[in-house]
Amino acid sequence: MVLDGSWYTESSDELGLGFSLRIKEKLHEEVSDYQTIAVYETETFGRLLTIDGLVMLTDRDNFVYHEMMTHPAIFSHGHVKHVVVIGGGDCGTLREVLKHPAIESVTQIDIDERVTRVSEQYFPQLVDSNDDPRAQLAFEDGVAWMQNAAAGSVDLIIIDSTDPIGPAEGLFNEAFYRQCHRVLAEHGMLVQQSESPLAHSTLIAEMHAGFARAGFAATHLMSFPLPSYPTGWWSATLAARDDLALAMPTETLDFHTDYYTPAMHHAAFAQPAFMQRILAAS
Amino acid sequence: MVLDGSWYTESSDELGLGFSLRIKEKLHEEVSDYQTIAVYETETFGRLLTIDGLVMLTDRDNFVYHEMMTHPAIFSHGHVKHVVVIGGGDCGTLREVLKHPAIESVTQIDIDERVTRVSEQYFPQLVDSNDDPRAQLAFEDGVAWMQNAAAGSVDLIIIDSTDPIGPAEGLFNEAFYRQCHRVLAEHGMLVQQSESPLAHSTLIAEMHAGFARAGFAATHLMSFPLPSYPTGWWSATLAARDDLALAMPTETLDFHTDYYTPAMHHAAFAQPAFMQRILAAS
Repeated sequence: MVLDGSWYTESSDELGLGFSLRIKEKLHEEVSDYQTIAVYETETFGRLLTIDGLVMLTDRDNFVYHEMMTHPAIFSHGHVKHVVVIGGGDCGTLREVLKHPAIESVTQIDIDERVTRVSEQYFPQLVDSNDDPRAQLAFEDGVAWMQNAAAGSVDLIIIDSTDPIGPAEGLFNEAFYRQCHRVLAEHGMLVQQSESPLAHSTLIAEMHAGFARAGFAATHLMSFPLPSYPTGWWSATLAARDDLALAMPTETLDFHTDYYTPAMHHAAFAQPAFMQRILAAS
Repeated sequence: MVLDGSWYTESSDELGLGFSLRIKEKLHEEVSDYQTIAVYETETFGRLLTIDGLVMLTDRDNFVYHEMMTHPAIFSHGHVKHVVVIGGGDCGTLREVLKHPAIESVTQIDIDERVTRVSEQYFPQLVDSNDDPRAQLAFEDGVAWMQNAAAGSVDLIIIDSTDPIGPAEGLFNEAFYRQCHRVLAEHGMLVQQSESPLAHSTLIAEMHAGFARAGFAATHLMSFPLPSYPTGWWSATLAARDDLALAMPTETLDFHTDYYTPAMHHAAFAQPAFMQRILAAS
């Protein structure tokens, strides 16, 4: 069947895949200095944010992404005080980081201020921690910011970017990873969204090799479901500056989550057999 | 954007979701006594089998489903000798079960022989264990078969059916579960595909409650990615006749898998926080 205009569809000829959400109305569309930002009201997934026609998040499933981009890395490190988020203009990652009372500062650096302003208007629950005194929002280029940052000044870098094409391309290569490595304090960690295990396993292997060449001592792949991203199966890569055993999450959490639990933390690091083989060979 | 006729699209107004695969050609379509069966050649997911317009499987991702419908239950039981598969006419589940040398018999009962005949023609890799002397294929009604089966005669029942509408509706209720419970031997187990944790959590809770009312001592939910099913996030429910600790998988497997590993076995049983709350409340 062919879907009519009451559906929003993201399709990729390269992946041979399409994903559609039934929409009630388009709430917003603008062309910022960097990209086209749009917001839709969907029938069953709440609001939908798109950038350049690609799904960034929906009200209904962003909890999985934001929780998995933050809590596993924070607990695996064990003593995070200073966090930098590269990208993440919707502020959902920032909100999750701020749930950890021991964290002293979080700096979010997104090149496009309009993403944050649109989130403030249409996704109020994502920005509801933005007035936390520990949070700082900067609207500038993440690559340049990292080049200028002091060595050893950050415990955790979270790279919460769009796909490795367009504005985010510079965030997926060895040169940037070297800068991140320099900026990380002793025992520091980095976590980056790393696309679909099924559709982008070559990219994942290249990312892991890039982290190794940039000096990171260990990389760990985490997988999780993400219905609104291509294949519905997504991943994040944790890269550790030093080769230490990962810390364990606490038995119970002091804050509310919808996906993350200590058991899901462990589960996310388990590798499907095919991915185990790909990573072992790379 | 609106996708043209070179895409196969499965959409659900109820879920507000659509999933599309770019196709090269339709290879087959027939109306059997029970349903419409079609096969497409896709651009990136290999061949696609549909029944009544719904995706049953693709070459590219069926490995996750078939491995997770079989190996976790077989290893959790620990001493499976006699298996019954209800549904599963594509024979992919049968193939995975037969990888376990200790299993002595597997009977597959699918109401529609045409599904198996179409699989023989278009999905040769799924049927490549059908001539194993331990395998028996019956083409009859699974509900009736279960009513006539001897008490205590089966170690593991695998319900590998379509959605709980249409021909498979009778496989998702307490009356059928009671029959299964009767047919299971001491320490017997049942595993049933249980739809999407995100989209069908109410159904999952109802299924678990139904198993409990039918006499099963324990139920365990397993989750896994499945790109070609709605939301890309799927589940299976393991119901145990007796409340024993689940056996642990062996450290290494004696056969090839692409998704299942002992670590993924453990990972699949971890519950997202929202699902933990739903199951605790039901």
